[in-house]
Amino acid sequence: MTRCWLRLADDDPWGLDNLPYGAVRTTDGRQVAAARIGEQVLDLTALGGFDAVFAAGTLDAFLAAGPRVWREVRAALTAMLTDGAQRTRVEPLLLPLAQVSPVLPFTVADYVDFYASEHHATNVGRIFRPDGAALTPNWKHLPIGYHGRSGTVVVSGTDVVRPAGQARDPDGTVRFGPSRRLDIEAEVAFVVGTPSPPNRPVPVRAFTEHVFGLALLNDWSARDIQAWEYVPLGPFLGKSFATSLAAWITPLEALSAAWVAPPPRDPAPLPYLDDSDRPYGLDLTLTVELNGTVISRPPFAAMYWTPAQMLAHMTVNGAHLRTGDLYASGTVSGPEQGQRGCLLELTWAGSEPVRLADGSHRSFLQDGDEVVLTATAPGPHGPIALGEVRGRISSSRS
Amino acid sequence: MTRCWLRLADDDPWGLDNLPYGAVRTTDGRQVAAARIGEQVLDLTALGGFDAVFAAGTLDAFLAAGPRVWREVRAALTAMLTDGAQRTRVEPLLLPLAQVSPVLPFTVADYVDFYASEHHATNVGRIFRPDGAALTPNWKHLPIGYHGRSGTVVVSGTDVVRPAGQARDPDGTVRFGPSRRLDIEAEVAFVVGTPSPPNRPVPVRAFTEHVFGLALLNDWSARDIQAWEYVPLGPFLGKSFATSLAAWITPLEALSAAWVAPPPRDPAPLPYLDDSDRPYGLDLTLTVELNGTVISRPPFAAMYWTPAQMLAHMTVNGAHLRTGDLYASGTVSGPEQGQRGCLLELTWAGSEPVRLADGSHRSFLQDGDEVVLTATAPGPHGPIALGEVRGRISSSRS
Repeated sequence: MTRCWLRLADDDPWGLDNLPYGAVRTTDGRQVAAARIGEQVLDLTALGGFDAVFAAGTLDAFLAAGPRVWREVRAALTAMLTDGAQRTRVEPLLLPLAQVSPVLPFTVADYVDFYASEHHATNVGRIFRPDGAALTPNWKHLPIGYHGRSGTVVVSGTDVVRPAGQARDPDGTVRFGPSRRLDIEAEVAFVVGTPSPPNRPVPVRAFTEHVFGLALLNDWSARDIQAWEYVPLGPFLGKSFATSLAAWITPLEALSAAWVAPPPRDPAPLPYLDDSDRPYGLDLTLTVELNGTVISRPPFAAMYWTPAQMLAHMTVNGAHLRTGDLYASGTVSGPEQGQRGCLLELTWAGSEPVRLADGSHRSFLQDGDEVVLTATAPGPHGPIALGEVRGRISSSRS
Repeated sequence: MTRCWLRLADDDPWGLDNLPYGAVRTTDGRQVAAARIGEQVLDLTALGGFDAVFAAGTLDAFLAAGPRVWREVRAALTAMLTDGAQRTRVEPLLLPLAQVSPVLPFTVADYVDFYASEHHATNVGRIFRPDGAALTPNWKHLPIGYHGRSGTVVVSGTDVVRPAGQARDPDGTVRFGPSRRLDIEAEVAFVVGTPSPPNRPVPVRAFTEHVFGLALLNDWSARDIQAWEYVPLGPFLGKSFATSLAAWITPLEALSAAWVAPPPRDPAPLPYLDDSDRPYGLDLTLTVELNGTVISRPPFAAMYWTPAQMLAHMTVNGAHLRTGDLYASGTVSGPEQGQRGCLLELTWAGSEPVRLADGSHRSFLQDGDEVVLTATAPGPHGPIALGEVRGRISSSRS
């Protein structure tokens, strides 16, 4: 194992095997692109080079530059951080993580949210349609997805204001007011770098040519607003008030030890969704914390549809990709109760509240509650960490 | 009536009362912002002035500049085109419309599509749910909407490739292939100029402060793909392959004679959707042509929900507006058979094909078919025209 001159612990989850990218505001007000190493960030904008892809202080140009540049930059950063001769030049560009503020690191083009966990979809089906089949007839034929609002994707750490909206009470009354069933959805999101031309579907096997990396995402959901509005055109205001994205984007290159085979599929996917040539699942273990209490550990390896299938499906109709397209997995839920990725499932629509360490209980989120999503993935020398998604609920202003 | 030195006919639908904005590519390859007058376009980028809002060759900066600048620019253009003393300076900047190619005139931020015609929603409900209530219980309480794909909004004149996708045949077989039920949706879209801050809902009465203007839109729809995928999260690939927008954006200022009261609403809208302070409906008459045959004349005045209500609803949960946000009305259908805005309704799901002038019939679109949407609105001195949306179907490449 090559050693970083920063002398990180061998098992540091933010070591050389990780090296995620983001953008931060420095204490002097500059916005810079950055790579995270340990508890520091390297100012890539000040570092220069790399065809100036970081000059604008975002990851936009870097994402657009494609896999060759992604590999070259990662290799160069690894060399800089291990070659003692470069220490004098590089060390002044390291800033303590605690002294910078993360910003949304790239321009979100289109945002799509999938529904790819069989366990989640089954639980939601049982809760909302207790008398019908848990899964809709299409569920095992295609990764169901819908477009969300890119303009309200916010970076981890941004407060989330409780949304107001219409909901229908059990007695049929339609009321307007702050959501009473504010929920989370623990998800993994994929960031598109290389665009694709119109009317040229992107095959499963081209996944790593187009997708740069991934990041945790919290798809905040107002269940009461959503339940009233979503038939027949899908979720709208119940989701569009805020979607929180981690500050650090983990490149797929850091996840070479994390690929796993997805669960068996029945029926076999149509040819354009065939992902049997290599393992396209990812062995990520998420953790959901509510006010410091771990309430769930959802396993991403249990997802029915893989991110490569989602990409192929999203483009099979001719829709092209743009740099900055973001697509998320949908709630990550595993087969066990302690692996469910949203409160709707964890509390079975509020009927079984979760108990927090302070003795209080939650059915849905209260004002002041703070949710933190974290995750780890197997790395070549031990687990690596994904960037957290943190968000606190503030009261509705309406 | 002040006369233009171009000596347009008094009843020219593209006269001084209209003056829509767009962006075009000139014969020498420049992309410029432009205003249309008669059968010519004025090169606003070469004209300069106006705080350089047209310098980039798009409408982005102009849209962001807000109502004061919108009014000033329109007043200045009107003055230039009526003041003979300015003719020498301005006339060289006029280009024949036939010699320029339109491009998408602004950067589409988020794209939302509503479902605001009671006649359309009722017809679709009867077709898809013959045994249930035609309208879902929420329909008269809120303007139903969903997010679409901004990246595949294309300018009028762009060919539309027939999408491929999954569909389920009546016998239950799931097949993959080119859509067999490719349809149109004749809609009116609204272009947001002035952004709004997060968590500050935009009230109905602020409509004209935020919305710059409108344009016709064709929300191409693959009905077979849509029918199979849309439960429970709404339309996705059945819509996201292409959405065609007119090249010319009509400013709201040109529509001062077009406001009408919307139809009566029962139940009364919730306070945040109350639009009774002034008439927020628009008396636009659309025309749908298929291969040169007029197949429908949908009346926008019959829409149940007004564009100001759509804006208020879209933001009531705290979602903010960005410059370039685009939201469309959903299919415009009137109460009569000849006023339906899509083939699904016009042919009652294909069971009553429409007859074209050449003697052929259509249930849904065939390769090579060309659809043109046009519209007129009352102006202060006679009808003004909205920019057309033209699109031809080319065969699926899959």
